[in-house]
Amino acid sequence: MKYKKEDLLSKKIKHIDIKKFNSVPLIESFSDMSFQSRNLASACEIYDKMLKDKDCTVILCLAGSLVSAGLKKIIIDQIENNMIDAIVSTGAIVVDQDFFEGLGFNHFRGFVDADDNELREIMIDRIYDTFIDEEDLRICDETITKIADKMEKGAYSSREFIYEMGKYLEKFGKNKDSFVLSAYKNELPIFCPAFSDSSAGFGLVLHQNKKKDHISIDSVKDFKELTQLKIKAKQTGVLMIGGGVPKNFVQDTVVAADLLGIDSPMHKYAVQLTVADERDGALSGSTFKEASSWGKVSQKFEQMVYSEATITYPLLTSFAYHKKSWKGRKAKKLNQKL
Amino acid sequence: MKYKKEDLLSKKIKHIDIKKFNSVPLIESFSDMSFQSRNLASACEIYDKMLKDKDCTVILCLAGSLVSAGLKKIIIDQIENNMIDAIVSTGAIVVDQDFFEGLGFNHFRGFVDADDNELREIMIDRIYDTFIDEEDLRICDETITKIADKMEKGAYSSREFIYEMGKYLEKFGKNKDSFVLSAYKNELPIFCPAFSDSSAGFGLVLHQNKKKDHISIDSVKDFKELTQLKIKAKQTGVLMIGGGVPKNFVQDTVVAADLLGIDSPMHKYAVQLTVADERDGALSGSTFKEASSWGKVSQKFEQMVYSEATITYPLLTSFAYHKKSWKGRKAKKLNQKL
Amino acid sequence: MKYKKEDLLSKKIKHIDIKKFNSVPLIESFSDMSFQSRNLASACEIYDKMLKDKDCTVILCLAGSLVSAGLKKIIIDQIENNMIDAIVSTGAIVVDQDFFEGLGFNHFRGFVDADDNELREIMIDRIYDTFIDEEDLRICDETITKIADKMEKGAYSSREFIYEMGKYLEKFGKNKDSFVLSAYKNELPIFCPAFSDSSAGFGLVLHQNKKKDHISIDSVKDFKELTQLKIKAKQTGVLMIGGGVPKNFVQDTVVAADLLGIDSPMHKYAVQLTVADERDGALSGSTFKEASSWGKVSQKFEQMVYSEATITYPLLTSFAYHKKSWKGRKAKKLNQKL
Amino acid sequence: MKYKKEDLLSKKIKHIDIKKFNSVPLIESFSDMSFQSRNLASACEIYDKMLKDKDCTVILCLAGSLVSAGLKKIIIDQIENNMIDAIVSTGAIVVDQDFFEGLGFNHFRGFVDADDNELREIMIDRIYDTFIDEEDLRICDETITKIADKMEKGAYSSREFIYEMGKYLEKFGKNKDSFVLSAYKNELPIFCPAFSDSSAGFGLVLHQNKKKDHISIDSVKDFKELTQLKIKAKQTGVLMIGGGVPKNFVQDTVVAADLLGIDSPMHKYAVQLTVADERDGALSGSTFKEASSWGKVSQKFEQMVYSEATITYPLLTSFAYHKKSWKGRKAKKLNQKL
Repeated sequence: MKYKKEDLLSKKIKHIDIKKFNSVPLIESFSDMSFQSRNLASACEIYDKMLKDKDCTVILCLAGSLVSAGLKKIIIDQIENNMIDAIVSTGAIVVDQDFFEGLGFNHFRGFVDADDNELREIMIDRIYDTFIDEEDLRICDETITKIADKMEKGAYSSREFIYEMGKYLEKFGKNKDSFVLSAYKNELPIFCPAFSDSSAGFGLVLHQNKKKDHISIDSVKDFKELTQLKIKAKQTGVLMIGGGVPKNFVQDTVVAADLLGIDSPMHKYAVQLTVADERDGALSGSTFKEASSWGKVSQKFEQMVYSEATITYPLLTSFAYHKKSWKGRKAKKLNQKL
Repeated sequence: MKYKKEDLLSKKIKHIDIKKFNSVPLIESFSDMSFQSRNLASACEIYDKMLKDKDCTVILCLAGSLVSAGLKKIIIDQIENNMIDAIVSTGAIVVDQDFFEGLGFNHFRGFVDADDNELREIMIDRIYDTFIDEEDLRICDETITKIADKMEKGAYSSREFIYEMGKYLEKFGKNKDSFVLSAYKNELPIFCPAFSDSSAGFGLVLHQNKKKDHISIDSVKDFKELTQLKIKAKQTGVLMIGGGVPKNFVQDTVVAADLLGIDSPMHKYAVQLTVADERDGALSGSTFKEASSWGKVSQKFEQMVYSEATITYPLLTSFAYHKKSWKGRKAKKLNQKL
Repeated sequence: MKYKKEDLLSKKIKHIDIKKFNSVPLIESFSDMSFQSRNLASACEIYDKMLKDKDCTVILCLAGSLVSAGLKKIIIDQIENNMIDAIVSTGAIVVDQDFFEGLGFNHFRGFVDADDNELREIMIDRIYDTFIDEEDLRICDETITKIADKMEKGAYSSREFIYEMGKYLEKFGKNKDSFVLSAYKNELPIFCPAFSDSSAGFGLVLHQNKKKDHISIDSVKDFKELTQLKIKAKQTGVLMIGGGVPKNFVQDTVVAADLLGIDSPMHKYAVQLTVADERDGALSGSTFKEASSWGKVSQKFEQMVYSEATITYPLLTSFAYHKKSWKGRKAKKLNQKL
Repeated sequence: MKYKKEDLLSKKIKHIDIKKFNSVPLIESFSDMSFQSRNLASACEIYDKMLKDKDCTVILCLAGSLVSAGLKKIIIDQIENNMIDAIVSTGAIVVDQDFFEGLGFNHFRGFVDADDNELREIMIDRIYDTFIDEEDLRICDETITKIADKMEKGAYSSREFIYEMGKYLEKFGKNKDSFVLSAYKNELPIFCPAFSDSSAGFGLVLHQNKKKDHISIDSVKDFKELTQLKIKAKQTGVLMIGGGVPKNFVQDTVVAADLLGIDSPMHKYAVQLTVADERDGALSGSTFKEASSWGKVSQKFEQMVYSEATITYPLLTSFAYHKKSWKGRKAKKLNQKL
């Protein structure tokens, strides 16, 4: 065995702080250049427009391994400075990564060409160049079971369950830097349309397995709630990091509103940071122009940025933070209205 | 207005028939070459190995716009010739595309550089180079509502609901070429871990909106059922077209079994056809080597093929079809055991 | 040392034979599907159109590690069946790979995750999953020196030098399967605009180093000759495998003709098989639509296929071979006209 | 006609100034994160190491549309602050873009979905989202002819010709911001191994066409000179923006030195910023690990960064600029030694 577990789990991932560097001069230069730099500058301007528009509810979509990559603090800053009003995410980001860190655990800098068979034997899980202690993850799963066990029988939306997770972290959490916790405190809703596809799924399977009067997660309820949120907002802007289910789910709310007989406008603003492209016909890389044929996104203020999020997301949000347009916004506390 | 709706919706997408061409000589040549051709040949051999292994349950994972692209008949042939035992899919493929065609509707050959604003006005939805009549999609949504309205109150897995969709198609369907229908008839389970993220979501929101004693879709139940399926199988092989939630969900069943205290082996065989790569740390492109650090997939028989599925999926399945190793297999009718 | 050289160099790459499988039924199915399968079908039809058009000179552009990947025989078949009239290539394909095999050497099936430090010590060079004996490559370099040493002092186009390489292979070659040899015999010109960027460069540096009255390779002469070829052709079609210098060079001939005061039409037909995309502004992935703004390529019959060439190039050429439109063509023997 | 030429050519591309923003805090944060942000931080540290290493000659490789994208000033700053010692580039960057701007012409911000047929009619050339006046480009071509016409008959390396271009700009240039000019003044060599594959090719074809005693560009001479440069350097570091011929050419110098019987070390440091990947076996995306099997690049200090250069190149160079390790370096004036 060439690896020692404690050696491999020694360099913690640290979360970037967008308040400590100012990307405004860089982005302003990018706006007079070409290709993805100019696209990024255009995306920054559109996000800033969302924040200036008093009628606009801003929805952040999250997919990919964002928290394990060191982007957690950005999301917390966006919540605490009223730079977003709702989150739609994959379960892995919310549970396996953010809630996990809220429990006091960490992600670690690893390396790409590790011997994965050896890693498995010492219970280290790898995400590209990042390591996780699988024993910590098991505790995370069990905590989900514990939370579920105390809830009353019934069908919950993922948002309702994540609210309970925030409440748990407030009492028992060991690291205050958690966006699940910040969202809880700020009454900001978090949706996971594929909630079971995560550590939450493990915990909830254990819960259902041992309790007869168990809870269930009703993804239809998620969709209903998010559509309500869309309907109540005068205008909406979507800021997407990655694609996947969150992208599709948020785009679909416009159609859902229409089906309910309510004339809700298309998403007025849309930005996506992604490495996917449109050429295989999959949703993750589909353009906003294509989405406008479906009546989901307006073509007026939309920008795809084809570059990886660990670089572009900090630049985009640092720009918006230092532009201060969020100063005119108040917490919408949408959890109270759902 | 430069477009006429009937002109744009005139060339139907036709589904490729893997029985009508034999890719064996091509793939055998590929095995002595390099790069993705050799990777594809290796994937073909692994899939054939799965079919030869009497102990192996084969799970097909589907993500991307596969049915609208003309790949539906392949899935039907895989079901009807016992080349797969279960399906895990996105909702769009199952509901918006396959069930939709089962109702008698079609997808159409379009073009990439269409004027999407005009398309919206004449209610045509675009997927890259493919067109859909949005009015047909609305009928699909409503049919889901109709099915849900007749079901008894309760929390269902997506599999249970899709079973009802198959039953509906058997009675009222207008096109027998539907893998939802074939799966229903062959008692083959279909799971959609993010079921509401589709036309089903629209239909079920309408259903919940109008009925007090409504049904809900419990994604935890899906996870529990799929884990049961994994536990009961001696060995498993996964054949993944695209990544996304289906990939993660199926990989996670190994861990879920472990959490339930049952020693279930890693997936013995694994193949993925994808255009994603590992460099952004997202799950869709993560390698099976990485998955083996998590204890999910064995490194013995695994192959990623980095090339688009509309070309590689027909070649892979035509190879397996003409190799005839499926002749020794029987329908597992797993729906009867869940 | 864990590797033995003879073990690693035991499985020869074998070149695919497009005459031995018929891709016509597959491609015809692809034409009614979506995404890259349909794009490939469209590219096949355009290539077939080039072959039917009596006025069309067909130029094949080659970039990437195509011969080491097992695609050499396709090029030979294209030459010998009058399916192309000229080649523009990178030096690596012509010298390090094809001429190298003509001398009797081979490429070998290797693996991606090799220990490259060990490979270096036993003088094995790696291209992704393919191995080469570096000692063989050295002989290839020296053979180039030998050929150059016997030539009269002067500035040659790469085409003229490659002609001498063909002559050498006819006399001293140990493997008749070489497209340099076939092109020589059929008087088909091969251009390498960046000729020194290859094993030829090594050989020619040695040559210039030891001889005072040495030859030089004048890349301007290449450009002049290729432009003459373009001017003399009534119409031209370009079939590009990969991008790089060959793509740019061939596209530029239209502009060069114009600068010489001759009104030569844009390339009438254009097909590219590539994995690059347009989003970074680089030439390799730039669209033919963009090229039409430069007046280089007509928009009438053009198709980009975004999928890897080891899979798509055999399918495309097997289609064209079995369609037999080349039967009406004669060898243009363009070397005699330059 | 919907376009007016003067409207489309009104917004000049402006070149980013790495001295005006400080990326050090951002990059330092990136070093504790994951995926491409950490890779970029690692690349920054390696580039800084090159500058600290007194024995190291730094070679900058350029491919892609970098100057038209607004990155020209970076290269000038690298030259004038002794942050590089030699350049190997595509011809398009050197001639069509930098020299072109040196003559007083500009690139303009355009848009991706332009009507390319209309652009052609008003003589505007498009590079993705960037516009160029083709009439200006013609003057650039003719200037090359003019320079060549005044040179003595003979075979020149591209470096020698580019030196003449610098001399021309010093006398007749209309914009002092040109890296060809800065390199000329600082005796820094620029190599274009595929020189004719550019506007220079056009100009030189015209030159050879009208003059009997014309010059030629001998690419072997380039290779010889660059190999001499490699041999004279104690250690070398390569900083690659994009791949293509410059990447291959520079890597090959190590082998060329060996063939000449001189024991020159592998490139000690290597960084590449690219969007290509290794999976298609092409050189542009091949890893430095693979290059180490060829004996070209050492594995000690190497880093690929898979992200687009318009974003990463400014960040990398601003880091190195503000770290000030270049303060200890002197201009190597390598032109005087070749």
